[in-house]
Amino acid sequence: MTKIEIPQEHPRAESLRIREKLVKHFKSGVVTSAGLIAHGRGEAFDYILGEKTTKPALKAIEAAAATLLTAEHPVISVNGNVAALVSKDIVELSKITKARIEVNLFHRSSEREIAIKKLLEETEATEVFGVGEAASARIPEIGSERRRVDPKGILIADVVLVPLEDGDRTEALVQMGKKVIAIDLNPLSRTAQFATITIVDNIVRVIPTLIKMINKLRTKDKRKLDNIASSFNNEKNLGEAIELFHKRLAKLAKKGVYLPILEVEEL
Amino acid sequence: MTKIEIPQEHPRAESLRIREKLVKHFKSGVVTSAGLIAHGRGEAFDYILGEKTTKPALKAIEAAAATLLTAEHPVISVNGNVAALVSKDIVELSKITKARIEVNLFHRSSEREIAIKKLLEETEATEVFGVGEAASARIPEIGSERRRVDPKGILIADVVLVPLEDGDRTEALVQMGKKVIAIDLNPLSRTAQFATITIVDNIVRVIPTLIKMINKLRTKDKRKLDNIASSFNNEKNLGEAIELFHKRLAKLAKKGVYLPILEVEEL
Repeated sequence: MTKIEIPQEHPRAESLRIREKLVKHFKSGVVTSAGLIAHGRGEAFDYILGEKTTKPALKAIEAAAATLLTAEHPVISVNGNVAALVSKDIVELSKITKARIEVNLFHRSSEREIAIKKLLEETEATEVFGVGEAASARIPEIGSERRRVDPKGILIADVVLVPLEDGDRTEALVQMGKKVIAIDLNPLSRTAQFATITIVDNIVRVIPTLIKMINKLRTKDKRKLDNIASSFNNEKNLGEAIELFHKRLAKLAKKGVYLPILEVEEL
Repeated sequence: MTKIEIPQEHPRAESLRIREKLVKHFKSGVVTSAGLIAHGRGEAFDYILGEKTTKPALKAIEAAAATLLTAEHPVISVNGNVAALVSKDIVELSKITKARIEVNLFHRSSEREIAIKKLLEETEATEVFGVGEAASARIPEIGSERRRVDPKGILIADVVLVPLEDGDRTEALVQMGKKVIAIDLNPLSRTAQFATITIVDNIVRVIPTLIKMINKLRTKDKRKLDNIASSFNNEKNLGEAIELFHKRLAKLAKKGVYLPILEVEEL
């Protein structure tokens, strides 16, 4: 495949750079082919959304920050796409929240686990859970290899951040009594519907914003933080996110603006 | 990567089967990593659309059928995703319209060209244009390797079917005076906006429907066919397609129905 030069001024430069990053980590064994397809789905949603953090997303990020700050055992679940796109930010997030990082994959293989662990360690993760024999516990009601969790990680977590997650697993974690924070560009997905807090936004924008929000809220007392978390209504927030999607489509349609990213320009 | 079993009754079975097909041909060198991402984008649009051929799409297919039936030198441009998903149907379409099949790739390499040619020949293509030295002509105003065309194919074509195409190339072909029939799930893309006839639908549904339509219309006289083609208004049709997108989003939002496909369930 020809290496595509991305000119600085290209209107799609940022999106193309993200894509290049993913393709690079696909080659290194961190990302799967299914992960590439999933990324394309995300691109489409993000484009409709306008590729920016919306008000409902910001509200969800605030609730997520308060929830992480008041958690006893927060865990960040990491898969191939997450590691490829935001490993550095994930490590910083884990440090400021004392959250453990656990690798959890649908397509589990030793090679991939190790590649992801290595990537996280290169960005200065001090400990990575859930790799190899460490994932010795099982959570109920999930068919895939994702059921394998680390007894020192997801199994005992009260709050789990699951960026780019599947619906079955989100549901299973919620049924185990855990608070689940999901990041999903599709507000209509099962993940979005099942999670305690759903952030409808692109992970590359979410994690840095979440870090800022945590640093802003960390001086607040527990009561204030509990209040932020408990006053958040996920259903209502999702409704607002969905509303934004179709408002934006209507607006684009009216303006006749085209969305160049969504072309299949590089087949 | 674990092979995923797709149960017959799975609500997403058809979409997952298509995805498996693409991943298989990715491994065989027909499809690129960029092609996988592009497929994901298409999945998102198709899902919003309801994964069915809409009325505006059917109208565009009818206009496309009439245009192909009255063409002097119709050509079907084939890339990796097209070959992976519908090579058999493309060959049939080429036979009933006497259209030449030309391989035209953004990421051109001898290996890919040959893999695609081989796939088309396995599905009984008698001649495949645009491979290797045969793509000796250049069309103006395109930067990528896509500018290389076959002097016996796209260069002399009056009608070019470009499924899953990029905007630059569509524009260039139209500026050369050719009629361009595009298949693009995104009605807002530059391809969709530039093409003479844009079919906003999934290629796996379009090609079989187009074949049926051609067989239905082939007994009509030229005047009738010209009339069908000339009465088609692409701008108006695209407007209707866009309208359907946001109506469907509004409806889904209201029903609170989730769209399970759009989860990133296999990262």
